[in-house]
Amino acid sequence: MPKLWNETVEAHRTQVRDAIVDSAAALVFEHGLRAVTMSQIAEHAGIGRATLYKYFPDVDAILRTWHTRRVEEHLAELVRVRAGSGTAGARLTAVLRSYAHGMHRAGRHDRGLVQALHPDEQISDARNRLRELISELIAEAAYSGELRDDIAADELADYCLHALTAAAELGSDAAVDRLVAVTAAGLRLQVEVE
Amino acid sequence: MPKLWNETVEAHRTQVRDAIVDSAAALVFEHGLRAVTMSQIAEHAGIGRATLYKYFPDVDAILRTWHTRRVEEHLAELVRVRAGSGTAGARLTAVLRSYAHGMHRAGRHDRGLVQALHPDEQISDARNRLRELISELIAEAAYSGELRDDIAADELADYCLHALTAAAELGSDAAVDRLVAVTAAGLRLQVEVE
Repeated sequence: MPKLWNETVEAHRTQVRDAIVDSAAALVFEHGLRAVTMSQIAEHAGIGRATLYKYFPDVDAILRTWHTRRVEEHLAELVRVRAGSGTAGARLTAVLRSYAHGMHRAGRHDRGLVQALHPDEQISDARNRLRELISELIAEAAYSGELRDDIAADELADYCLHALTAAAELGSDAAVDRLVAVTAAGLRLQVEVE
Repeated sequence: MPKLWNETVEAHRTQVRDAIVDSAAALVFEHGLRAVTMSQIAEHAGIGRATLYKYFPDVDAILRTWHTRRVEEHLAELVRVRAGSGTAGARLTAVLRSYAHGMHRAGRHDRGLVQALHPDEQISDARNRLRELISELIAEAAYSGELRDDIAADELADYCLHALTAAAELGSDAAVDRLVAVTAAGLRLQVEVE
């Protein structure tokens, strides 16, 4: 087959995959995790059941793909934030804030979904990269004297990631900003509470 | 029936329930959550399957009972710690430390189990009481000027509970103590890192 044809097929496959993943997510948000079936997803995506099974073996696999995408998007956003201007401490604050607001937007619903999914290598990999990104910024800020250097950066990164999961259950953006300020205070990093 | 007989029957029922719950926990630790069946639990507890079903409808219900017991025991321990001597800040530190070490002992295994269980009213109730206990101590310590008073006590309690879940994945007791010190620093409560 000519190269152009291959590219067209590949683009079509990507479109179908996207439609399946988006359909599954929409159905889960509407009906809840346990109520969604492969048949409903096929119907919602406008494809046959047989076609659906060529792409994914079951609902869990579709939702894992959906979750991995969200984590990857979020990670890309955090990488952009880290590359911004300012001291390591200021960039760390911006990353923590972006992460916390992301957790807040995702909310309880996503967390329930994530807990129900069996953990998967792709998800763990994205989580490890997130942890590393924050750990590196912490080490940099500790080196420049902007935060505590009595505790290893990876332990502090774990602390941040766990503390900020509280954002999923908070009621307002202002409360999320307060959580970030409190978490930063644990690092002895100064963040203003507005 | 005379009262004594009723009490004997009740004591027997409690014993059987305990044996069932302990058997289920032992089997899950040995074989993993998915591999354990009602038949195995009955055999391990030394009772018939029919008897087992008179006590519990399924494995999940047994494990929820097991988890609720653990949370209740832990809560009782924290209530004892709170009642100890010292300032509100010192007692808060002791409570956070006890909670974090409990999470550390329970470890990843318990967390996986808890995430796999469908949430249940009894579990939420115990969690709410835990949150209240910590929130009250925080309010008391804030009032006496031992920690920050710019953020509501219940938000700070949520922060603590989430931050300290990081203890489940830490490698040593010393790392757990460091996590408690960092979390306390977020509250602007002074705790020594040893």
